[in-house]
Amino acid sequence: MVANVLEINPERLWESLERSAEIGRFRDVGLRRLALSAEDKEMRDLFVEWAKTAGCKVEVDRLGNIFARRDGSDPTLPPVAIGSHLDTQICGGRYDGILGVLCGLEVVRTLNDRGLQTKRGIEIICWTNEEGARFSPPMMGSMAFARQLPLESVLATTDDDGVTVAQALDEIGYAGAAPIGRTFDCYLELHIEQAPVLDREGCDVGIVVGGYKTRALRLTIKGDTGHAGGTPMAMRRNALVGAGYVIAAVNDIGLTYAADEGRTTTTRIESFPNLPGTYAEQVKLTIDYRHIDPARFEAMSKAVEAAIAESAKKANVEIDVATGWSWGTELFAPECIELLKATAKELGLPYREMRSQAGHDAYAVATMAPTAMIFTPCHEGISHNVNEAIELTRSVPGANLLLNAAVARANR
Amino acid sequence: MVANVLEINPERLWESLERSAEIGRFRDVGLRRLALSAEDKEMRDLFVEWAKTAGCKVEVDRLGNIFARRDGSDPTLPPVAIGSHLDTQICGGRYDGILGVLCGLEVVRTLNDRGLQTKRGIEIICWTNEEGARFSPPMMGSMAFARQLPLESVLATTDDDGVTVAQALDEIGYAGAAPIGRTFDCYLELHIEQAPVLDREGCDVGIVVGGYKTRALRLTIKGDTGHAGGTPMAMRRNALVGAGYVIAAVNDIGLTYAADEGRTTTTRIESFPNLPGTYAEQVKLTIDYRHIDPARFEAMSKAVEAAIAESAKKANVEIDVATGWSWGTELFAPECIELLKATAKELGLPYREMRSQAGHDAYAVATMAPTAMIFTPCHEGISHNVNEAIELTRSVPGANLLLNAAVARANR
Repeated sequence: MVANVLEINPERLWESLERSAEIGRFRDVGLRRLALSAEDKEMRDLFVEWAKTAGCKVEVDRLGNIFARRDGSDPTLPPVAIGSHLDTQICGGRYDGILGVLCGLEVVRTLNDRGLQTKRGIEIICWTNEEGARFSPPMMGSMAFARQLPLESVLATTDDDGVTVAQALDEIGYAGAAPIGRTFDCYLELHIEQAPVLDREGCDVGIVVGGYKTRALRLTIKGDTGHAGGTPMAMRRNALVGAGYVIAAVNDIGLTYAADEGRTTTTRIESFPNLPGTYAEQVKLTIDYRHIDPARFEAMSKAVEAAIAESAKKANVEIDVATGWSWGTELFAPECIELLKATAKELGLPYREMRSQAGHDAYAVATMAPTAMIFTPCHEGISHNVNEAIELTRSVPGANLLLNAAVARANR
Repeated sequence: MVANVLEINPERLWESLERSAEIGRFRDVGLRRLALSAEDKEMRDLFVEWAKTAGCKVEVDRLGNIFARRDGSDPTLPPVAIGSHLDTQICGGRYDGILGVLCGLEVVRTLNDRGLQTKRGIEIICWTNEEGARFSPPMMGSMAFARQLPLESVLATTDDDGVTVAQALDEIGYAGAAPIGRTFDCYLELHIEQAPVLDREGCDVGIVVGGYKTRALRLTIKGDTGHAGGTPMAMRRNALVGAGYVIAAVNDIGLTYAADEGRTTTTRIESFPNLPGTYAEQVKLTIDYRHIDPARFEAMSKAVEAAIAESAKKANVEIDVATGWSWGTELFAPECIELLKATAKELGLPYREMRSQAGHDAYAVATMAPTAMIFTPCHEGISHNVNEAIELTRSVPGANLLLNAAVARANR
């Protein structure tokens, strides 16, 4: 490490991570800390306590997004924002999201240790419901903040029990008064990679220049009920059979594109009436596909569309297709990417440029402020799984990059 | 019609059917009268009222099976039993089950009209939960009655809300005191065909000599959760992909065997965690296949087993297979089949011999008493669908066959 650069406190970061991993513990080593649940409230309360102890002013907006600000010397300047999320998947890991928030906190704590004041403030953000596990779509808090989703429709979104986001926010006391929309000098987000590239290459720092082109489709497959025994095969309109053909074909497409890192996924399925003696009249199915190369992505799109049409024909059903979410490849600001690269070089940190395969809050924030991301390695790329694992020594370089880049920008 | 034979009252039968179709009305023309629901209770109460008005003694056993008996002249002789069921599927029709019960009632009413006493009694039976829509497996009441399922495990079976059969019976007041197990001289069941053979052939009477060989498999597909974006295709163990390959392959097998009336069906699917950003670690899937020819059935079995193994391999998951239910082809008693054939000839009724593609309570009862079934046509074979339809004129011949065969046997 070069003499005049700052370093975070690795033990303190790890201790905070370990403490956070006690909240929503699931299957011994993992977490179930769904957005706006009692566990999420407990984690939010702990974060707010930590932020206040570190001297931050804390505000919460109508969506429950939390903003913890360490003031700069010039209060008229927009702050440097650093954010991620506290919620997890239903069978989630200990590092997805929270690592980025706690590295933001570590930036503030390190500045406090050194008694350093920056020109611009530093604002740590916890975005509401990044995962989309309880309320869909994912990244709801940052998207509504960035006016990519209407506030009212987000507040009216229900979970599987019919509870709205607005009700859940009220219940945990995180329906705040801060205005939606704030100005940032820039936005930086550190996140575990959730794919195995860094881990396999032995590289500890990914500078994320954009995303994989990604689209999710929500299919409604429409057939008709009938007797599982007596109905001749040719008369059947089993919506579940339509779904089965789609799932199989979409996975085959993913395997075809796997060599250049294409991905297809079928995730959520809901079938009605879903009973043993009657076949299904309606199935809802979510599919998702991603590719780093826009041209290959378009080819995948055509293959997926053709597979849906072919499946509908084979199963004698109708399939309605709606877009669930989609984003492109060119997301992040050259100035922020350059800042990260220059800072990494200054720190003597090896890095690789890369594109994110996962969605992140940074995608929405990038539409309103210059944005970039830092990835740190996770073991074998395992994520959205209780066995998600990181090594502290391989996480610290990314945290130091975040710290020094944020401070450089905040003193600009 | 020959002079010395009996005839039911078609208008009265139709009026009773219409009245029964008011209970649990669903989507205008169909029924949702799930086993042991409030609607089932209302239908049971009405049946009991009708049976008592017709002079029957009514008993209910611990399983809620209802026995309505018109005494014969010799009370030491076992009665002729005529039964079917009052419950429906969740999107069910107006005739599945209830037609057989009301034709049994029509036998009693017709004997009353004529002031005729039979030597043996006539016992009309309503079996609990034939459909298996709320509680699985189907035909639970008759199977436990015939000691094919243990009473205690049936009573402990839960619906999707965790309510047990025992609780549901208590709630509607149909946990009766009559002993499980009674002796019948024979058992006759009339049912709509639920397949299009009679309707297409223009034949009004099917004499059912047995069933299609049938097996249901309950699959548990085991993978692991992972990130829908970042996880490389080769690392994925998406249980829903395993299910998709099984569904597609099993349907393809059904299409291959469709020419000689083979059937494959995939019905119920449950996926966990079933969220958009994470793929599935476990899927439960029910599949069902049937064939009239035992040798062809065995070939289908092998094809299904191979498809399951191949799907597990392609999806990189494990698949556990358990048998849900199964029955064979040789179910019914030659003496009862002969009785029905001889009676049909006597009545001058054209009939065809056939095998049932659907499961029926008669299959369980056949293990304890000589049994046969009569099928009547349903429009295009549409069943387990609100649009299930019959014509009265095409149903009356079967009802008259039931009446005359039952009386012949009861006077034996």
